[in-house]
Amino acid sequence: MKIGFIGLGRMGSAMAANLITAGHEVTVFNRSAGKRRSLAQLGAHEASDIAAACRGEAVVTMLADDAAVTDIALGDGGITASLAKGATHLSMSTISVALSKRLAQAHGRAGQSYVAAPVFGRPDMAAAGKLFIVAAGNPDTVDICRPMLAVMGQTTTQIHSEPWAANLVKLSGNFLMASVIEALGEAIALIGKAGIDRHAYVEFLTSTVFTAPAYRIYGNLIADRKFEPAAFAAPLGYKDIRLALAAAEPLEVPMPLASLLHDRFLRVIAQGGEQLDWAAIGDLARQDGGDPRHSNGRGSSAVE
Amino acid sequence: MKIGFIGLGRMGSAMAANLITAGHEVTVFNRSAGKRRSLAQLGAHEASDIAAACRGEAVVTMLADDAAVTDIALGDGGITASLAKGATHLSMSTISVALSKRLAQAHGRAGQSYVAAPVFGRPDMAAAGKLFIVAAGNPDTVDICRPMLAVMGQTTTQIHSEPWAANLVKLSGNFLMASVIEALGEAIALIGKAGIDRHAYVEFLTSTVFTAPAYRIYGNLIADRKFEPAAFAAPLGYKDIRLALAAAEPLEVPMPLASLLHDRFLRVIAQGGEQLDWAAIGDLARQDGGDPRHSNGRGSSAVE
Amino acid sequence: MKIGFIGLGRMGSAMAANLITAGHEVTVFNRSAGKRRSLAQLGAHEASDIAAACRGEAVVTMLADDAAVTDIALGDGGITASLAKGATHLSMSTISVALSKRLAQAHGRAGQSYVAAPVFGRPDMAAAGKLFIVAAGNPDTVDICRPMLAVMGQTTTQIHSEPWAANLVKLSGNFLMASVIEALGEAIALIGKAGIDRHAYVEFLTSTVFTAPAYRIYGNLIADRKFEPAAFAAPLGYKDIRLALAAAEPLEVPMPLASLLHDRFLRVIAQGGEQLDWAAIGDLARQDGGDPRHSNGRGSSAVE
Amino acid sequence: MKIGFIGLGRMGSAMAANLITAGHEVTVFNRSAGKRRSLAQLGAHEASDIAAACRGEAVVTMLADDAAVTDIALGDGGITASLAKGATHLSMSTISVALSKRLAQAHGRAGQSYVAAPVFGRPDMAAAGKLFIVAAGNPDTVDICRPMLAVMGQTTTQIHSEPWAANLVKLSGNFLMASVIEALGEAIALIGKAGIDRHAYVEFLTSTVFTAPAYRIYGNLIADRKFEPAAFAAPLGYKDIRLALAAAEPLEVPMPLASLLHDRFLRVIAQGGEQLDWAAIGDLARQDGGDPRHSNGRGSSAVE
Repeated sequence: MKIGFIGLGRMGSAMAANLITAGHEVTVFNRSAGKRRSLAQLGAHEASDIAAACRGEAVVTMLADDAAVTDIALGDGGITASLAKGATHLSMSTISVALSKRLAQAHGRAGQSYVAAPVFGRPDMAAAGKLFIVAAGNPDTVDICRPMLAVMGQTTTQIHSEPWAANLVKLSGNFLMASVIEALGEAIALIGKAGIDRHAYVEFLTSTVFTAPAYRIYGNLIADRKFEPAAFAAPLGYKDIRLALAAAEPLEVPMPLASLLHDRFLRVIAQGGEQLDWAAIGDLARQDGGDPRHSNGRGSSAVE
Repeated sequence: MKIGFIGLGRMGSAMAANLITAGHEVTVFNRSAGKRRSLAQLGAHEASDIAAACRGEAVVTMLADDAAVTDIALGDGGITASLAKGATHLSMSTISVALSKRLAQAHGRAGQSYVAAPVFGRPDMAAAGKLFIVAAGNPDTVDICRPMLAVMGQTTTQIHSEPWAANLVKLSGNFLMASVIEALGEAIALIGKAGIDRHAYVEFLTSTVFTAPAYRIYGNLIADRKFEPAAFAAPLGYKDIRLALAAAEPLEVPMPLASLLHDRFLRVIAQGGEQLDWAAIGDLARQDGGDPRHSNGRGSSAVE
Repeated sequence: MKIGFIGLGRMGSAMAANLITAGHEVTVFNRSAGKRRSLAQLGAHEASDIAAACRGEAVVTMLADDAAVTDIALGDGGITASLAKGATHLSMSTISVALSKRLAQAHGRAGQSYVAAPVFGRPDMAAAGKLFIVAAGNPDTVDICRPMLAVMGQTTTQIHSEPWAANLVKLSGNFLMASVIEALGEAIALIGKAGIDRHAYVEFLTSTVFTAPAYRIYGNLIADRKFEPAAFAAPLGYKDIRLALAAAEPLEVPMPLASLLHDRFLRVIAQGGEQLDWAAIGDLARQDGGDPRHSNGRGSSAVE
Repeated sequence: MKIGFIGLGRMGSAMAANLITAGHEVTVFNRSAGKRRSLAQLGAHEASDIAAACRGEAVVTMLADDAAVTDIALGDGGITASLAKGATHLSMSTISVALSKRLAQAHGRAGQSYVAAPVFGRPDMAAAGKLFIVAAGNPDTVDICRPMLAVMGQTTTQIHSEPWAANLVKLSGNFLMASVIEALGEAIALIGKAGIDRHAYVEFLTSTVFTAPAYRIYGNLIADRKFEPAAFAAPLGYKDIRLALAAAEPLEVPMPLASLLHDRFLRVIAQGGEQLDWAAIGDLARQDGGDPRHSNGRGSSAVE
């Protein structure tokens, strides 16, 4: 397929590379020019503006947040203004339910198609084409996207015919993940202060009952107090919990654990932890318990 | 080995059966006589009192709670009064850290050995000899117990040389499990009220990112609102969260998520849900959201 | 002074009446015509549009929420478009910090003055000219407003030179008030379920240690379970807690009690309690405790 | 009346002094001899053991906690063993509901009367005979105590015929008070980080809507970050919240705000704040917000 790809961060550039390698004709665009180079070497065309990335059957976006997507998709010279009638915007960013609804309306008015297909997985999974993708939108349009989705993800699940539903599933998934971090943080603070070896504890848990990779990844980060460099930074986690709560408000669903997580992330950020991995909320229970042991050898931590 | 086994509930009788089948000489005791029969048919001796179950190298206990263990182990004619010097009490119940410390002292004074080895797994895993066991105590004594543990569990992890540590790990594990239930309850309330299919959602989660069995088991129970019959009743979950918090108090570790779970279980019980599975806390977010949809077809629920 | 007054709800009409009675020349405007009549009988001029209420030295607004103020103040033909240079907008509504900042900018660009002066007090206090007013803005402009403020309130406290600060103080005050309701709700649920007379308890508290009127008012409403008619409806309380949390986010101040209150209000509303007084969150602990006693004789309650 | 008085801390010695001054014949006892002297100078007899303080019509106890009361009242040579049949134990300590029930049973078996009458008020109010007393027990026995209570308190409210009810009211009152502290802590963290003067804010609140003395006392302590010396230390506040939650468990009343307070106090203590006033929980929101401003000039604080 002839495709545009906008948003060449760590996730986006890996995803675009897979599309190119699979034989799609891909035109890439990013605000900062530098990132386009390595993709050009793989065979990508370079677009000098958004419009130039919107001349194919579809344009894929993988951007940081609502502000970036609003700007790229709805701004002057943006996607809705540039994409041909009948062409598809495949939006893979983690954005709010409200923005996803706005995009659906805007593309609908412009005679364009819109599919939301956010992804689960870290950059290494993106590079391997092993993302888990949850898609929503008109089933026919989703089918049009499948050749692209199949290259980027190991599975694509269509969850609903309205695009926003995929965004809600993605946000709820990140809420579940942050819940794992908080729970592990409290458990490890408890057993650690009791003098039990934290790594042996994580090894026990993850080799028996809690076999999902998240428990191993976050259990070890918390046991090590290793929150830098961030694979997924605390402000991004905070953003997603805020978006989950923002979606829950008009739906009128109280979520006390999400509220707790909201306050945890806000605290990490307020205390100077903007550059830390979101796993850093898993250190707060240890701090609250006043446990000085188990330092990570870095001398001091930005979250203390 | 010549072994006593006390506590023949669903878990205990399955564990005892495996010991018998493996060739150990097992004398069983239970307060209510009825439960001994099927084990006798497998070849168990029947003890008429605790002392009669304490004449071997070791006695295993698998009892409901602190009160039962206190009574059996420390009461008149109990284990400490009956077990030979040098023999071992292998305590596999989920009990408090405080009681585990008391037992260690009492057995120490009596010249007996004491190992704590609580288990993870439901009755079907006990029957299959597939429990996950976390053990703590003097390493030599744990080694003495290994022929028994190997028959009951698929893995045994020694976590510490002090028995109470295994009990703390077990309690923290049940806290982690209850956290999964609460998080799933809130997420499913959110996506369910949004009109997304709850079962498709659980299927997506558990086939991609949240592959630990707990997510599938509890996700489906919550999506189905199927809380009866209880595999693990709400009062047992409440008990374990209380014991985790009780252990956290002298260690001075604040655990806000554990506090939330405490209040959730107390609410289910206060509202008449004593007989429900502990997964019933996963329905509270739906109730709080006033979502009447997704009834389970039973007409009404004890937790509403 | 020659004054316009926009927003003639229960609070606004009482405040406008006091201005008229005190001898000010008041032109009133309200979206729904009916409410202007009784004030006209006191001597008010009736404005047919916003501009007609903006021809004096100052215009006072007392509106329901951000949306109404945005519309009236910043919309086409609104206050910023209509007020003379040098004239003052005295904004007494409970609005967000963000909107207050926007208003300050808009009025500044238009060469107009802007004072935020939200009020504490229920309609009876407004009628008696006994409101407590917290004001913020340029001190000279606040002084210009004092003849008006003195008529509407028993005290006016200038808290800061930036208008938004008064709005933040007002929101924080409503947070404190909602905290009183929640705390009383839990305490009364506890002593009520223990069989202690709820009214005797409230009488004891409020005649000894908790003498602030809020304890008496809300203690009795909760003891009586009398949440209708609403003096201040649950959705308004929810709005204010949301605005307090929205102000806390850019300031990066985690507020766990505010998060709890957020979830409490959302639950009351989700369960059909939109028309109830915000004191209804004080009934949730009783409901969670499954206490059927102390019914208020109405047979059933919308929050159950 | 001929009275014994046991427990001569800051509260107890002030209360005993008032009884002596009012003309009662008072025999005092305290574990540490030193404290009896100043009361002897007022005319008190000094008892060398508990029994010597139990020879009158009544014995008053004002002790630190459950452990002290258990020891003094139920231990060998304690009150139940020493008091004459028909004489009264007037228990004014803040103790658990469970212990109050045990005392009622023990005194009943011994043919003695028992009244629980815990107090509200700080040491200065005790010295002035201005405590607020909540009493519970057999009405005739309470009447016998009234001449004593009238000297120690400005009001005595009989709340129930079962003594434990007064203890529950006292614990719930301290829960309400701690809720005031938490709410003020969050509000002051918010307005303080926004740059609003914290003292002006407290002055505004307490001169208008929140006139109960608690708001002034704790508002100023938090604004000043002045938590030493403690008038009521954090471990005592923690104890009372724990006892309130312990009473709520068998009554099955979930109290989420009490759970939050539990975790707040535990954190202050875990972080080394044992000697701080319980108002120190009101500094945690500021710490969580990472606000370095508004230091109290002491250079550093034990709770940071």
